[in-house]
Amino acid sequence: MRTLINASKLIRNQKYQSRYLATETKMVTPYKKALTIENLNPNIVKLEYAVRGPLFLRVTEIEKELANGVKKPFKKVIKANVGDAQAMGQSPITFIRQVIACISYPEVLNSGNFPNDVKERSLEILQACGGKSIGSYSSAIGIELIRKSVASYIEKRDGFPANWEDICLVPGASAGIKGCLQLFVNDLQEKSGVMVPIPQYPLYSASLAEYGLTQVDYYLNESKNWALTYEDLEKSYQNGSKNCQIRALVVINPGNPTGQVLSKENIEMIIKFAYEKSLFIFADEVYQHNIYEGEFHSFKKVLNELGSPYNQVELASFMSMSKGYMGECGLRGGWMELVNMDPKVKANLYKSIFARLCPTTLGQAVVDCVARPPQKGEDSYDLYERERNSVLLSLKERAKMIEEMFNKLDGFSCNIVQGAMYAFPRIELPVKAIEAAKKAGQEPDVFYAFKLLEATGICVIPGSGFGQAEGTYHFRTTILPETELMKEMLDIFHKFHVQFTRDYY
Amino acid sequence: MRTLINASKLIRNQKYQSRYLATETKMVTPYKKALTIENLNPNIVKLEYAVRGPLFLRVTEIEKELANGVKKPFKKVIKANVGDAQAMGQSPITFIRQVIACISYPEVLNSGNFPNDVKERSLEILQACGGKSIGSYSSAIGIELIRKSVASYIEKRDGFPANWEDICLVPGASAGIKGCLQLFVNDLQEKSGVMVPIPQYPLYSASLAEYGLTQVDYYLNESKNWALTYEDLEKSYQNGSKNCQIRALVVINPGNPTGQVLSKENIEMIIKFAYEKSLFIFADEVYQHNIYEGEFHSFKKVLNELGSPYNQVELASFMSMSKGYMGECGLRGGWMELVNMDPKVKANLYKSIFARLCPTTLGQAVVDCVARPPQKGEDSYDLYERERNSVLLSLKERAKMIEEMFNKLDGFSCNIVQGAMYAFPRIELPVKAIEAAKKAGQEPDVFYAFKLLEATGICVIPGSGFGQAEGTYHFRTTILPETELMKEMLDIFHKFHVQFTRDYY
Repeated sequence: MRTLINASKLIRNQKYQSRYLATETKMVTPYKKALTIENLNPNIVKLEYAVRGPLFLRVTEIEKELANGVKKPFKKVIKANVGDAQAMGQSPITFIRQVIACISYPEVLNSGNFPNDVKERSLEILQACGGKSIGSYSSAIGIELIRKSVASYIEKRDGFPANWEDICLVPGASAGIKGCLQLFVNDLQEKSGVMVPIPQYPLYSASLAEYGLTQVDYYLNESKNWALTYEDLEKSYQNGSKNCQIRALVVINPGNPTGQVLSKENIEMIIKFAYEKSLFIFADEVYQHNIYEGEFHSFKKVLNELGSPYNQVELASFMSMSKGYMGECGLRGGWMELVNMDPKVKANLYKSIFARLCPTTLGQAVVDCVARPPQKGEDSYDLYERERNSVLLSLKERAKMIEEMFNKLDGFSCNIVQGAMYAFPRIELPVKAIEAAKKAGQEPDVFYAFKLLEATGICVIPGSGFGQAEGTYHFRTTILPETELMKEMLDIFHKFHVQFTRDYY
Repeated sequence: MRTLINASKLIRNQKYQSRYLATETKMVTPYKKALTIENLNPNIVKLEYAVRGPLFLRVTEIEKELANGVKKPFKKVIKANVGDAQAMGQSPITFIRQVIACISYPEVLNSGNFPNDVKERSLEILQACGGKSIGSYSSAIGIELIRKSVASYIEKRDGFPANWEDICLVPGASAGIKGCLQLFVNDLQEKSGVMVPIPQYPLYSASLAEYGLTQVDYYLNESKNWALTYEDLEKSYQNGSKNCQIRALVVINPGNPTGQVLSKENIEMIIKFAYEKSLFIFADEVYQHNIYEGEFHSFKKVLNELGSPYNQVELASFMSMSKGYMGECGLRGGWMELVNMDPKVKANLYKSIFARLCPTTLGQAVVDCVARPPQKGEDSYDLYERERNSVLLSLKERAKMIEEMFNKLDGFSCNIVQGAMYAFPRIELPVKAIEAAKKAGQEPDVFYAFKLLEATGICVIPGSGFGQAEGTYHFRTTILPETELMKEMLDIFHKFHVQFTRDYY
């Protein structure tokens, strides 16, 4: 065998020498790139993702400049642009992190440093892993034990049965949402359309662009605290149907970037609308723990309460470990529940997920902790409750604080932040500022956000990144800066705005 | 505001009552599903992924049956189907797991239970995380510190410079490969084609199907230990070019499922071929640590050694934490290095990755440990070396053992397993078995693999899942069962094959 290879190698080398030495003595043909901006996937070129757009890149630059001693009118950047709680100082939940540490390095289980329920949970999770190690692949749709934990969580939350086989664990809600959106790509028939709220979380517009699906906007009603109205849905449906076959409807509840919590009646109306039009509902419910006013009603629950025939509507509900009180963005955990999905479709979805191997086992372990937190009487119960309540209470205070401050400011109005992690205040911009923005080739709200960043170090996201009604301007700020920093930020913001208004009066 | 909502709610409810009560008293229109097998993304329907196909599903069933006391001719399943080292009993590397535990729950850093270099590394990684917590989002393309660690690793490996900004951390190589393949989707021009080895790792065929790209097969030469030949590449290129514009070439080295390690000369030939045809090279180098014979030459190194003009060829090299000596499949870590990619294309690729948020921070931490293992003189150095060498040595023994056993068996021939984690023996099937398979509506090798599984509990993957030359039959088995289990497996396999040949003689 060896001799064979060597012989053929020799022959090949000789071939090459003659072929390439010949060209090298002549002018060498310049290499033509296989991949250029001209022949790149046009959907990728179109794709925009405002939350990580130019402003975000500028923040990274500014932080480096500050670190290198460049003089600025501020000492630090305040990142109110990303829903990244722990980056803003929120502490993780002890129980979750103890379990992660124990299953990662089970030797510490013998150290006597961990509560009993942490040890028990860790052993239970390890037992459910191949070779009792988190280093093994799990099933691509998640560890069975943890899918069952999620089913129990949902049953307890809703008071209706949940089938663990309808639950698929994902490395963050985005992955699940993208996987489901992709199912609708179908160029054999009329182009598929998906109804998306405006303002929306730009994962949706980005993914629809990526998959070449048609985005059909419907407007949230700002004067009704960002509720959906039947009239607006119907109008959007009628308009959109001219260009595509609308097959799905995205609802984000609690709202991102808008912070509303939908009433049960509103959700009933949406489900009935979806029934009427045969739409698949994407219920983005990743902020289901972040409720500061009102009550969270899952689409699954309302669908069950409505009963026949509305309980036939197809629904995928998405949940993430990155939000809520745990804020474990870096650990990439989440789930989706698939309700009423055609079994053949589900089999195909799962098949496509299997080709992606598995979501991180440690992200799945976070899901288990959140779906099945310590119970009364267990060692970690008190601490878990205290930590969870403290985070949620503090977020509630900050939600109130931020809304009140913006409503006090001339030229601002801000809906009540009932849930999620964001305020989306509306801002009146002076005519001169709008003109200056146009001159600079920027949207007026982008212009404002860049000025704010360069002058104060505060980073917010302009409303145009999420979409907004024509002629209105907004921005999204998180409610995540810890209380003292939040006060400082609001104070700086106030001063900046007064100066900005003066400059462009 | 409240009164407004309530008023509008009332009106809405009245509307609904009239609308829906009216329909409910009539016959209710049956709900028409939005998503059915008929209107589902046809690319998802087409997608196949043999490694997790029907045989894999059957294994899960059999395991449940065994657990429920169903009588079988065997007591346990031997999963030689998946490259999942820890599931087969391989121990994780202590240093890696200690770092993961420490950064997950930094309180243990004070416990005095960890070596100094573990503590230092942990603090360094935490320092590089937002809010000094692994619960924060990292940059979607990875933590800068760790991208720099990877660049150093590559420089040391190749002896050529590596730019950390060309390195993107990914949650497993598959995600990186899919992200790069997607760049080639372009229906505006002639359909894009990608050259893929046969046999291949089915991630490629699955992803090409998913993206609607054209798969252009080229054959690895079994009689030359699965080398690539210029003639086969050229033939494949000429044939493929009739139907599409071929823009990329996939090479898996060390080979999966074929276990070969390409010679430097072979790689030179491939790079020159890519240069000539303006092809983007996908170098799947996830098994670069798994070398049992010969030497690993990275495409990046050979490209640099070749110099001008061949060093202009576009190249993406992929690496994973799931393979090698670490085998951390569940932790989802990996990287890709993008060489000579057009800057505008790279910016668009990174933009599309940003919309996916970030790879798990803990998976990234594994990358840091592997790219920058403990150095001589550091506390963990000896143990790390011992553990790594022990795993690799044992794999080397098993690679030899498996090849020898199959070559001893009548009707089998098996190339030398130079690298990776697999043997891909060829098997002569009796005519009667081929006929029986056809009657059962199965490929003959699938028929064989199912018979093997049901009779012995041994799970291997039929060659047709990877592709094989017309009229030949193979299967892929991992070399991962630990030595004793491997001996047992080979013995059972032998007996089964003798019986099978008798049954279908």
